[in-house]
Amino acid sequence: MKVHDLPTPALLVDLAAFDRNVATMAERWPGTSLRPHVKAFKSTALARRLADAGHTAFCCATVREMVGMAVAGLDYDLLLANECLDLSRLTPVVEDGARITVAVDSDETIDAAARAGIPEVLIDVDVGLPRCGCDPADAGRLADLARSRGMQVRGVMGYEGHLMREPGDTKADLVERSMELLLDAQAAVGGEVVSGGGTGTWEENRWVTELQAGSYCLMDTEYTPHAAGFENALTVLTTVVSKSAKGWGVLDAGLKAFGMDHGDPTVLEAGDCWFVSDEHITFGIAEGKDVAVGDRVQVLPAHIDPTVSQHERMHVIQDDDVVDEWEIDLRGW
Amino acid sequence: MKVHDLPTPALLVDLAAFDRNVATMAERWPGTSLRPHVKAFKSTALARRLADAGHTAFCCATVREMVGMAVAGLDYDLLLANECLDLSRLTPVVEDGARITVAVDSDETIDAAARAGIPEVLIDVDVGLPRCGCDPADAGRLADLARSRGMQVRGVMGYEGHLMREPGDTKADLVERSMELLLDAQAAVGGEVVSGGGTGTWEENRWVTELQAGSYCLMDTEYTPHAAGFENALTVLTTVVSKSAKGWGVLDAGLKAFGMDHGDPTVLEAGDCWFVSDEHITFGIAEGKDVAVGDRVQVLPAHIDPTVSQHERMHVIQDDDVVDEWEIDLRGW
Repeated sequence: MKVHDLPTPALLVDLAAFDRNVATMAERWPGTSLRPHVKAFKSTALARRLADAGHTAFCCATVREMVGMAVAGLDYDLLLANECLDLSRLTPVVEDGARITVAVDSDETIDAAARAGIPEVLIDVDVGLPRCGCDPADAGRLADLARSRGMQVRGVMGYEGHLMREPGDTKADLVERSMELLLDAQAAVGGEVVSGGGTGTWEENRWVTELQAGSYCLMDTEYTPHAAGFENALTVLTTVVSKSAKGWGVLDAGLKAFGMDHGDPTVLEAGDCWFVSDEHITFGIAEGKDVAVGDRVQVLPAHIDPTVSQHERMHVIQDDDVVDEWEIDLRGW
Repeated sequence: MKVHDLPTPALLVDLAAFDRNVATMAERWPGTSLRPHVKAFKSTALARRLADAGHTAFCCATVREMVGMAVAGLDYDLLLANECLDLSRLTPVVEDGARITVAVDSDETIDAAARAGIPEVLIDVDVGLPRCGCDPADAGRLADLARSRGMQVRGVMGYEGHLMREPGDTKADLVERSMELLLDAQAAVGGEVVSGGGTGTWEENRWVTELQAGSYCLMDTEYTPHAAGFENALTVLTTVVSKSAKGWGVLDAGLKAFGMDHGDPTVLEAGDCWFVSDEHITFGIAEGKDVAVGDRVQVLPAHIDPTVSQHERMHVIQDDDVVDEWEIDLRGW
């Protein structure tokens, strides 16, 4: 099938750009030193491609992602890099032989992991982002508590998400200070794993033993300035469904096809995004550009994670051909 | 089941508030004078409840919504209130006896409707919102073109979406001027239907023969100031999964559970939303509020349409009981 023949809106992955992104990351973070973050793409088909490139250990943000990855056989080493109080759906996955680790940052999350029979945990540490993670001074106590409940403590996790968008000249210093907190916690916790980082600190973070990056393989317009080396590989294919003599056109994809928290998507070639409605983008037609009702227009999302999660599948393209389809099978919770 | 026992995140509909909203709207716009907009809730189960209240004519934004409504037997009078160039999936629906009307605003959309065997159309007119709709001066010609292709022209449609958030003292005047454009177009087009309006102009619009409103039955924080008379009936139930001694808590719902184009959702009772990540809300714990890991917290969305479309079902609640489940079966395109 040709790209032009796809029903719209359709999520497109440029396979060549995707493969270049994967190769670029694998050179710096080969094999299991990269722990790709499934939340960015929510697709076992895409994950399998990363596993084929040597990245066989994954992390997830939801229990559904964990279960789906295990069912797909991608269960060599799965980390739930998130706090969760209901882990009961992971119990049969553990019993089936998957290697399952979960992040914990409180007495309550340790209790939930113990009750679900989770064999291994990481102590999640607050390294400066106001979100999950325990006080670094409490990490050792939590590790002891987890061990007392019969669980192995593999090490620590800490996400320096507040630093992803720091300017280049200060980012490395700030990441170092953040990771010092994590290494201090590790000294109290024990274990070999220091898990953290992301696409935005793939060059700066030299302290983690495994990098949790997911966005890098598809990318988006918001992340591009903060992660040199990676290309936008994901677009939404749309159709011009209306056109006004007053200078605007209307595309058939809107708020339900794009994550909007990082702002408007970028209309490629045809013009500039004016505003986004539930099912439409109104764009100003670029000067001198000949736009007709029926034209196909590609649009770059500002944030891939909540864009991908609104679609059922990615159409994988090479030039003008659709060469594969990756189901987005890990949506929901 | 009790609300507290639902796995989170979970979309909740307060049935009493929903029913009050439906009754309030039905008093002013009874029966088929209201054409509920399916795009707001994407659920045939919810639509059936509106049909039971007398609103048997619906409008949709996507072909999938149209097909799904027809398959569910809610096909008394279905309007695709949107421009679309590939209507082939509607052909069997027409052949099965559903009453199908589509909006057209160009030669190309008229051609698409004719090729799909669509029997009836509305001429969609630009009444001031820069989106779909023809130049009012072109409406008569398009009606003639549609008739020449064998289609019935039922009348006109025009959405004054740019006026939904006007202040109360000028809204009525602006709506009148906008609707004058639509009535002038109707004079050239013929037909009896004048379709338009929305939740934000339900009190001001006295010119349409049918109001296209969908948000009113569930509502959101952004719309509330612009549509007095309706209550927020939709929340996302979340769980506190982490808590910091520095004063914040973390909820287990984020960018993939909320439409973000109208800004942050509103954390009820527990505190204030600080920021939203892919799978989390970080909130500042309200002064004097005792928040514990494991607590359930309800969160009000800022925009219902792109919130609902990210969930698989709505849990219908009465006080503390879950009394029904409405599948969100019309997602996608």
